[in-house]
Amino acid sequence: MPVSMDTLVSFAKRRGFIFPTAEVYGGLQGFWDFGPLGVELKNNIKREWWKRFVQQRSDVVGLDSTIITNTEVWRKSGHFDKFTDFKLECAKCASRFKADQFLSQEIKDKINNFVGVRIKRTKDDQNTPEELLKKTGEYFDTLLPEIHSKCPNCGGNKWAKLDEFDLLFKSFVGPVSSSKDMVVLRPETAQGIFVNFQNVQQSMRLKLPFGIGQIGKAFRNEITPGNFIFRSREFEQMELEFFCKPGDDEEWFDYWRKASMQWFLDLGMKQENIRFTDQPKAELAHYSKATTDIEYHFPFDKGWSELMGVANRTDFDLKAHGQTFRDEEAKGDITPFCIEPSAGVDRAALAFLIDAYDEVEGGRSTTTETNKEKEVVLRLNKHLAPIKVAILPLSKKEPLATKAKEVQALINKDFTTWYDDTQSIGRRYRRQDEIGTPYCVTIDFETVEKDNAVTVRDRDTMEQERVSIAELHSYITQQFS
Amino acid sequence: MPVSMDTLVSFAKRRGFIFPTAEVYGGLQGFWDFGPLGVELKNNIKREWWKRFVQQRSDVVGLDSTIITNTEVWRKSGHFDKFTDFKLECAKCASRFKADQFLSQEIKDKINNFVGVRIKRTKDDQNTPEELLKKTGEYFDTLLPEIHSKCPNCGGNKWAKLDEFDLLFKSFVGPVSSSKDMVVLRPETAQGIFVNFQNVQQSMRLKLPFGIGQIGKAFRNEITPGNFIFRSREFEQMELEFFCKPGDDEEWFDYWRKASMQWFLDLGMKQENIRFTDQPKAELAHYSKATTDIEYHFPFDKGWSELMGVANRTDFDLKAHGQTFRDEEAKGDITPFCIEPSAGVDRAALAFLIDAYDEVEGGRSTTTETNKEKEVVLRLNKHLAPIKVAILPLSKKEPLATKAKEVQALINKDFTTWYDDTQSIGRRYRRQDEIGTPYCVTIDFETVEKDNAVTVRDRDTMEQERVSIAELHSYITQQFS
Repeated sequence: MPVSMDTLVSFAKRRGFIFPTAEVYGGLQGFWDFGPLGVELKNNIKREWWKRFVQQRSDVVGLDSTIITNTEVWRKSGHFDKFTDFKLECAKCASRFKADQFLSQEIKDKINNFVGVRIKRTKDDQNTPEELLKKTGEYFDTLLPEIHSKCPNCGGNKWAKLDEFDLLFKSFVGPVSSSKDMVVLRPETAQGIFVNFQNVQQSMRLKLPFGIGQIGKAFRNEITPGNFIFRSREFEQMELEFFCKPGDDEEWFDYWRKASMQWFLDLGMKQENIRFTDQPKAELAHYSKATTDIEYHFPFDKGWSELMGVANRTDFDLKAHGQTFRDEEAKGDITPFCIEPSAGVDRAALAFLIDAYDEVEGGRSTTTETNKEKEVVLRLNKHLAPIKVAILPLSKKEPLATKAKEVQALINKDFTTWYDDTQSIGRRYRRQDEIGTPYCVTIDFETVEKDNAVTVRDRDTMEQERVSIAELHSYITQQFS
Repeated sequence: MPVSMDTLVSFAKRRGFIFPTAEVYGGLQGFWDFGPLGVELKNNIKREWWKRFVQQRSDVVGLDSTIITNTEVWRKSGHFDKFTDFKLECAKCASRFKADQFLSQEIKDKINNFVGVRIKRTKDDQNTPEELLKKTGEYFDTLLPEIHSKCPNCGGNKWAKLDEFDLLFKSFVGPVSSSKDMVVLRPETAQGIFVNFQNVQQSMRLKLPFGIGQIGKAFRNEITPGNFIFRSREFEQMELEFFCKPGDDEEWFDYWRKASMQWFLDLGMKQENIRFTDQPKAELAHYSKATTDIEYHFPFDKGWSELMGVANRTDFDLKAHGQTFRDEEAKGDITPFCIEPSAGVDRAALAFLIDAYDEVEGGRSTTTETNKEKEVVLRLNKHLAPIKVAILPLSKKEPLATKAKEVQALINKDFTTWYDDTQSIGRRYRRQDEIGTPYCVTIDFETVEKDNAVTVRDRDTMEQERVSIAELHSYITQQFS
């Protein structure tokens, strides 16, 4: 049975993976801080992605563009005018909901039509933003009587307010907070890649097909952040834009679907918890020719939910930013097509945690205590585990302490270690199992008195092996190669 | 002679290290994007820092807190009311300057006094923020006639305006942009550590002394961003807060001064370009007992400028956020002291680039072309070099191409490679020298016809060694260990 979200949230806080941000000041809804083990887990996920999809490929390079961006980027990409959600408020109980599920297709069409006209108006500069906002509000009021869905909270069928909700975080740069100095916190890392297409292609002398990868924070002012770190307002993306000649796009789309799925499977995600879901043509974003979601079976109400998406974005984005590629064969400029595998670091971290979380009823066999309780084992892939090797001297006293520190120094040159010399060895094994540490190294009296060797315990098999200290580093190295 | 800033900026763009952000839309002052080589350089710097100061130490753990933060964090830290600069505008030519250098101590005291009173007023809520802003403006107007410095641009001695400049970027979370929903883009990563002190200490069961490290973006709305990536409005920090018992702070301050300097030297920074500068007591920030800057000799007007700082922050921050430590020996709560080594990733990248940039007049001896021009060698420490190994088949044709790809696959499992098969081998060596690649591997006809070996060329010595393909991976590995 998968771990419940409540158990996971409390586990993640207690064991130093994830804390609510600014908890001492009442927090901030939709924002989470990653603790000592969480940051190592996230770093490992990012490193595995970057290694596989950027460093180890000769057809992909990396990029790191800014978070604060020129608004023109988002006007051209279409985000500035269209990146909104709608919020509905019940007239009776004042509960607020994301409006989608309550609106008929007819109303949606009306809204889309209105927003389309408004965008045109913005471009013609006939209204100030404030005037437009007022007019939008007045128009939305006229739609309220047409919404016949009932409030899921109180059952009422009268709605007080339909609001537009701007998903873009905005700020101001320079001394004066005027609209001309407005900047946007990027809602995705992808556009930073598209606007740099020619700079990257020319400086690196790249030929089609090639990709540009980027890992970084993105921000969306979500109406309903929730399900722990599944939907946050600040999150981190791993995005790859792979550019190819028009006509080769469907083949590459298929390639990146499979390569993306394989990455999760290679990092130990259980086959039965992950699947492809092709988006129906009718629901595709306006720029997309085809989109496949890779979904994970999360233990919250909705169940199967998007872990990442792979989209055929055609030439929409490069065209929007006027970026072309000089095709030497055709002796002319072409606009490449683009396939985008886009994954969330936080969602990946959440899915890997859920997938790895295992409770063993009645305890595991090596426990020396008689009182056997439920034990937690976090069966993370060893490359993702925050701590690789725990160093456990059987006693705090000399000469074991000095010897244990020597052993630690030997290992932590290349592997993250954790030193623990408090309480019984059984409890210490359990603490390491709980945070997913694949190897525990115990330094005992025989180590110093007899064989200059240590006991290495495997998290999953619980088997113990005696390894001489001289060979320990290469033994551990081998486990990770 | 060190490289000029102009040469470096153009080099960095041309070779894919650093681009002006959103260049196609006129850019954004104080914001820079890192290209394919820049992101690898930055990642290598961050990895070396994290490895040395977090992973390889048993007394330091990591953290990754949010960029968007609860305003209360910054009210308590003192940033919200005091994190401002002052801007002065010439009445004659309308040039704008950071005001510090033009204000007498008397005027500075008046301003500090006024701001102090204003802070008190804010807390008592007697004025709206707008009213306060207006009153501040009126008060500053009364100071203008007292400023007798001349305008460095036109020589005029009349000033039109003294403005406060809020260094905090602010935004709004939720549907309504009201002041109660205001959030701050963190101007430093440090406060995220302080507010999480107890969460981290308790979840990881840490005992004093211990440190918490964090790498991440920070944002300051600087009046005068400039000198390329030296002063940007979006930048990345590597900060470590090291907590110890009061009384042990001076010893640890001394320790972290030295350890910080040693990190730069170990990564190959030239001793003559880096120095300590202790801040005079009178200029210390209000929270600091002692601060030492580590300065680098930059090739812009000011010359020696701050690369990083090490500060003894006392117990100021933990006290501000009400964070304490349970001292089991003393059977009571204490507030630890804190030593902060704080470095900028972008400044480090800039300094490493400047330090490594070398121009060889008349070309280097291996160049086969007769027309010997000036050649650039980027003598980066090999651990910082963006590309570790270049793969250079002598000819594009088979069977060399296939063999070269095989060699690449062998190496890029663990080392970032670059494949280049265009133009003469001399030009290809030069291109790799220019971006700092420490090793070039050439696949020639003998490789496939005779010895199944390749030629490995060293960037700095230009010596070439014949290495069998079977031993190549371990040969390269050894160079990096």
